[in-house]
Amino acid sequence: AVEAMAAQVENHPISSILIIIAMQTEALPVVNKFQLTENPHPAFPKGVPWVHYHGTYKEITINLVWPGKDLTLGVDSVGTICASLVAYASIQALQPDLIINAGTAGGFKAKGAGIGDVFLASHVAFHDRRIPIPVFDLYGVGLRQACSTPNLLKELNLKTGKLSTGDSLDMSPQDEASITANDATVKDMEGAAVAYVADLLKVPVIFVKAITDIVDGEKPTAEEFLQNLAAVTAALDRAVTQVIDYISGKCLPEL
Amino acid sequence: AVEAMAAQVENHPISSILIIIAMQTEALPVVNKFQLTENPHPAFPKGVPWVHYHGTYKEITINLVWPGKDLTLGVDSVGTICASLVAYASIQALQPDLIINAGTAGGFKAKGAGIGDVFLASHVAFHDRRIPIPVFDLYGVGLRQACSTPNLLKELNLKTGKLSTGDSLDMSPQDEASITANDATVKDMEGAAVAYVADLLKVPVIFVKAITDIVDGEKPTAEEFLQNLAAVTAALDRAVTQVIDYISGKCLPEL
Repeated sequence: AVEAMAAQVENHPISSILIIIAMQTEALPVVNKFQLTENPHPAFPKGVPWVHYHGTYKEITINLVWPGKDLTLGVDSVGTICASLVAYASIQALQPDLIINAGTAGGFKAKGAGIGDVFLASHVAFHDRRIPIPVFDLYGVGLRQACSTPNLLKELNLKTGKLSTGDSLDMSPQDEASITANDATVKDMEGAAVAYVADLLKVPVIFVKAITDIVDGEKPTAEEFLQNLAAVTAALDRAVTQVIDYISGKCLPEL
Repeated sequence: AVEAMAAQVENHPISSILIIIAMQTEALPVVNKFQLTENPHPAFPKGVPWVHYHGTYKEITINLVWPGKDLTLGVDSVGTICASLVAYASIQALQPDLIINAGTAGGFKAKGAGIGDVFLASHVAFHDRRIPIPVFDLYGVGLRQACSTPNLLKELNLKTGKLSTGDSLDMSPQDEASITANDATVKDMEGAAVAYVADLLKVPVIFVKAITDIVDGEKPTAEEFLQNLAAVTAALDRAVTQVIDYISGKCLPEL
C-alpha cells in the first residue's frame, strides 16, 4: 500500500508543498511573495509558538511553517529540536508531497561558497553528534541524501554541495573536523534534523540555503550573519520562488 | 481554563506517568519490573520505530516510551532529536500527569558523582548549543528547572545536582566549558530536550539519572559506559521503582 501511494504521488503533479523556515526574517519575504495568510487555527497543540501560513500558488497548496519565537526569551526558535518538532507536527497535519527546508547558512569559500550564493544541498549530515562507539558513530553523523532534483538544479543554475548541521552558530575544532569529514560546503542549524524526520515519515525533502557568512573567512560569524541577513533573505526568497515556479505542474521524478 | 486544569491535576493523586528512556538496555528492566506490555497499536505514525509499553501499578497508569532502534542502522535512537520527538508524540497521545526521564549518564567526580549513583536533577541545560548573539545565547543554553520534589528527594535519599545535555558521548573543550558554566554534576544526551518539550506542553518532568561513567576520570567514556551499563541499569531500575512507589497516592505538590 505504501509503495502504491508512493507511485501515485510520483506520477501526479506535486500539489502540496511544506516550506520549513527557522527565522521570521527569512520567512516573511516568502510569505509576502506567495501572498500566504496565517492560519488562525493551526493543527498544532495549544500553547506552542509555531506559526502556519498557507495559500495557493499556480495550483499548488503552499504551507509555510515557522517555529515561532521562544515563549520565554522571544528569539526565533532555531536549531535541530524545534526544526524536528515542527517538521513532525506539520507532516502529520498537512501531508505534503514535498518539503522545502529553506534558510540562510554559513558557507566555506574553500569549497566555492560566496555571500549571497544559493545552494541546493545534495546531502545532509550532523557535525556535533560525536558518539565514538561502532555504528552509533554513523547514527550520530546521520548522513542522508536530499531528494534528487537534477533538472531543477540545472535549469535554475543553483550551486550544489553538501550541508552539515549543528546547534551552534560558531565552529569548534571538533565541529570543524566533522564538517571536513562530511565534505560540507554549507553549514546550517536545521537541515539534517528536517532530513531525519522527513526520512522517518517518508516525505521527500530538498534544502535551499542562502549564504550569509563565510565560515572560513576573516569576519566573526555572528557579526557577518547579522550584517547580511536582510540582503541574503532577498536572494533566498527569489530562489524559493524559482524553485516553486519550476515545480509547478511537474511530478517528483521530473525534477 | 488552563489554570483550572492545572489546579485540578495538582489536587488529585497522580494517575498517569510517562517514562521516557532512550536505550532498550535501560528500558527493559523497568518494563519487566512493572510487568508492562507492549502496545501493539501505539498512537504513533506508521513507520516510526518508537515503542510504547503500558500497564497499571498501584492504581497508576504507567506508560513507558522508548524511541526504538534506528530503522537504517539498528542502534538505539539516542540523543535530543529523538527524545524531543517521542516526548512530543507521547504527551499528545497519552496526556500524562508527570513525565519521568530516566536513563544512564556520565558523572563528574569533582562534583561528588560516583559509578552507580542515582541522581534526581534539579536543573537541566544544554552544553552544545553555542549561539554567541545576545538572548540567542540563553536560548541555546535552554536552562530549565525540573519539577520540584523536595520530599521525594529526602525520603529516597537520592543525590541531586544539575544535569547538562548534549548530543555527543565524548566531551570537547567547548562542551566542558559549557558544562562548567552550567554547574553540572551529571551529563546526558536527552534531558534538556525532554525538558524543552515538557515545558512547551506544560507537563511537569523529573529526571532520574544513574551514573555509568566518570567523565573527569581516567577511563575512556565509551569503554566505561559499555562496561557498567548492565550493572547500573539495575540501580536505575530500583530507583525508578522507589520513585513510583513514593508517588503512588500522592498529588504533585506533595512530592
